[in-house]
Amino acid sequence: VHVVDTVSWAPEGGAVRIIDQRRLPEQLVERDLRTLDDVCDAIRSLAVRGAPAIGVAGAMGLVASLLPFAHEAEARFRQRMHRHAEAVRAARPTAVNLPWAIDRMLDATARVEGTGALLDALRGEADAIRDEDRAMCERIGGHGASLIADGASVLTHCNAGALATAGIGTALAPVYVAVRNGRAVRVYADETRPLLQGSRLTAWELARAGIPVTVLADGAAASLLAAGAIDLVLVGADRIAANGDVVNKIGTYAVALAAGHHGVALYVAAPTSTLDPRTPSGADVPIEHRAPDEILGGRPGEGVAAYNPAFDVTPAALVTGYITDRGRFTDPSALFASLASPSELLR
Amino acid sequence: VHVVDTVSWAPEGGAVRIIDQRRLPEQLVERDLRTLDDVCDAIRSLAVRGAPAIGVAGAMGLVASLLPFAHEAEARFRQRMHRHAEAVRAARPTAVNLPWAIDRMLDATARVEGTGALLDALRGEADAIRDEDRAMCERIGGHGASLIADGASVLTHCNAGALATAGIGTALAPVYVAVRNGRAVRVYADETRPLLQGSRLTAWELARAGIPVTVLADGAAASLLAAGAIDLVLVGADRIAANGDVVNKIGTYAVALAAGHHGVALYVAAPTSTLDPRTPSGADVPIEHRAPDEILGGRPGEGVAAYNPAFDVTPAALVTGYITDRGRFTDPSALFASLASPSELLR
Repeated sequence: VHVVDTVSWAPEGGAVRIIDQRRLPEQLVERDLRTLDDVCDAIRSLAVRGAPAIGVAGAMGLVASLLPFAHEAEARFRQRMHRHAEAVRAARPTAVNLPWAIDRMLDATARVEGTGALLDALRGEADAIRDEDRAMCERIGGHGASLIADGASVLTHCNAGALATAGIGTALAPVYVAVRNGRAVRVYADETRPLLQGSRLTAWELARAGIPVTVLADGAAASLLAAGAIDLVLVGADRIAANGDVVNKIGTYAVALAAGHHGVALYVAAPTSTLDPRTPSGADVPIEHRAPDEILGGRPGEGVAAYNPAFDVTPAALVTGYITDRGRFTDPSALFASLASPSELLR
Repeated sequence: VHVVDTVSWAPEGGAVRIIDQRRLPEQLVERDLRTLDDVCDAIRSLAVRGAPAIGVAGAMGLVASLLPFAHEAEARFRQRMHRHAEAVRAARPTAVNLPWAIDRMLDATARVEGTGALLDALRGEADAIRDEDRAMCERIGGHGASLIADGASVLTHCNAGALATAGIGTALAPVYVAVRNGRAVRVYADETRPLLQGSRLTAWELARAGIPVTVLADGAAASLLAAGAIDLVLVGADRIAANGDVVNKIGTYAVALAAGHHGVALYVAAPTSTLDPRTPSGADVPIEHRAPDEILGGRPGEGVAAYNPAFDVTPAALVTGYITDRGRFTDPSALFASLASPSELLR
């Protein structure tokens, strides 16, 4: 299975190569990010998207932006490093993985002396963040793949695939591993209005990997489930509250209701970093409301309003199980207990 | 309340004036249909759409296309009338109201002699079909309006409004009547992918009538219902099977599941002509599958398939009640018993 490489070092070095997701699926445009402006602009403009991928791109991009300054004395270089770090951190204020990655990068330089050693430490930490992200994806895939029988049809919503991570994705990771293990899988991808991550991104990356994919309007998923055409629903998560409620892309809840009604298992596949023990339930998560234009399409629409929440809440009762890099869980309390167990990553 | 006039006689006579719905909501373009080609083309190209509106436009269009031939001798005129009638009937083969309207038109000429009398009979029958359609809409509105309290929020799917009929619509008729009676109503309109009848048509006609309307992605309806923001769901129907199952625009079933889950009443508002006693259940209705292009948007999408059913089936168990021109019914057997009672239309 050829899985797309969303964030990587450019072969000639000195730059981070990303896939410009704004151009998909019409064109596969790779962009090499060299300067601080390149990096911030790519993150701000959603050329790179998906919480894990943004964190990795921010860390690697910070390194690339500092490489031309290897000749600077340490004090001056440290100043520059902090300036670049804050600029990258601010490129997308709501993405939780970005400040997390930048903090890790700066922590890695705490006990290092000399510009060369600083750059080595930064590059090493960026590689570690990328490798951990890839390992996280593989673990999720490994823990979830046994849910997918040969010949299975899997329904997904939005894009929680390779394009959202540095590896094989989160919700799609079990699919990639199952296919890698020789099983035939068909993915049904909700187009995911209003931004069409399903038809633009999920369909593209799966087709490129040679995995059969069928796109449908979000409103058609219920009839597909009613027809018995789906064996398993796999979705990602932006946040999982302490009671197991799942905050994910708008439309997930409607799919969960239909899956529950028709007795089709729905699994949420997400990194452990998505678990939020300090938020009691989904009702406690503030939901971002986005621009009406995404719904109304820039048409005049005098007197026409729009309701455009970015996320919805799927209650734990509708979730058959959770797949993280630390295992598979049916019970939210077992899921959150896994936070105390040592990470399997990179062992 | 100013409700848009979707099909009417052009003021100077001799033509049927329609709103070209392909141009909405960007532009309000009215087209006057004079020739047989005008009429067939408007129906075929979906410039006029919605089963009731198509029937009315076909009947009135047949008259308009024959007016220039009032000088022809009866035998020749009858030949022409049958030729035009068959052409109009074939313009949209699956629309059940079109052959029904054409049959009525031809029946009306059965015992008439002379070209002038034939034209009078045709014009009279076309007016009757239009007036009955308007009366049907008013009856539905009257039977449904009491469900809508002052300040209520109503969720609807697709367009079963004035733009789909010659009158005030079917699913939206109770809204228009409630507003006419002085009640404040807000309508939440699913955008209705893939063809966006909700954001293009429902939002436009309601805004034009001064009724507050909020458009949302289809996948967002469940979270709106979960939030308690909706008092009543009103949808139309393309066909109602003998057991009360409702065939309607794709996405209706997902809305019905969410409404049922959250205890929000869902009413199906449709003309009596939609009742199909010869079809035992929704499972017996063949579902039209439309072009993948509507989903994939003409993008290359190598290896990407589409699932694009035009309709889905909402089981009777999820329908709180039915509103037709003959009354309001909670039980499918009472609904179908109404077929035996005399029509209230035009009494």
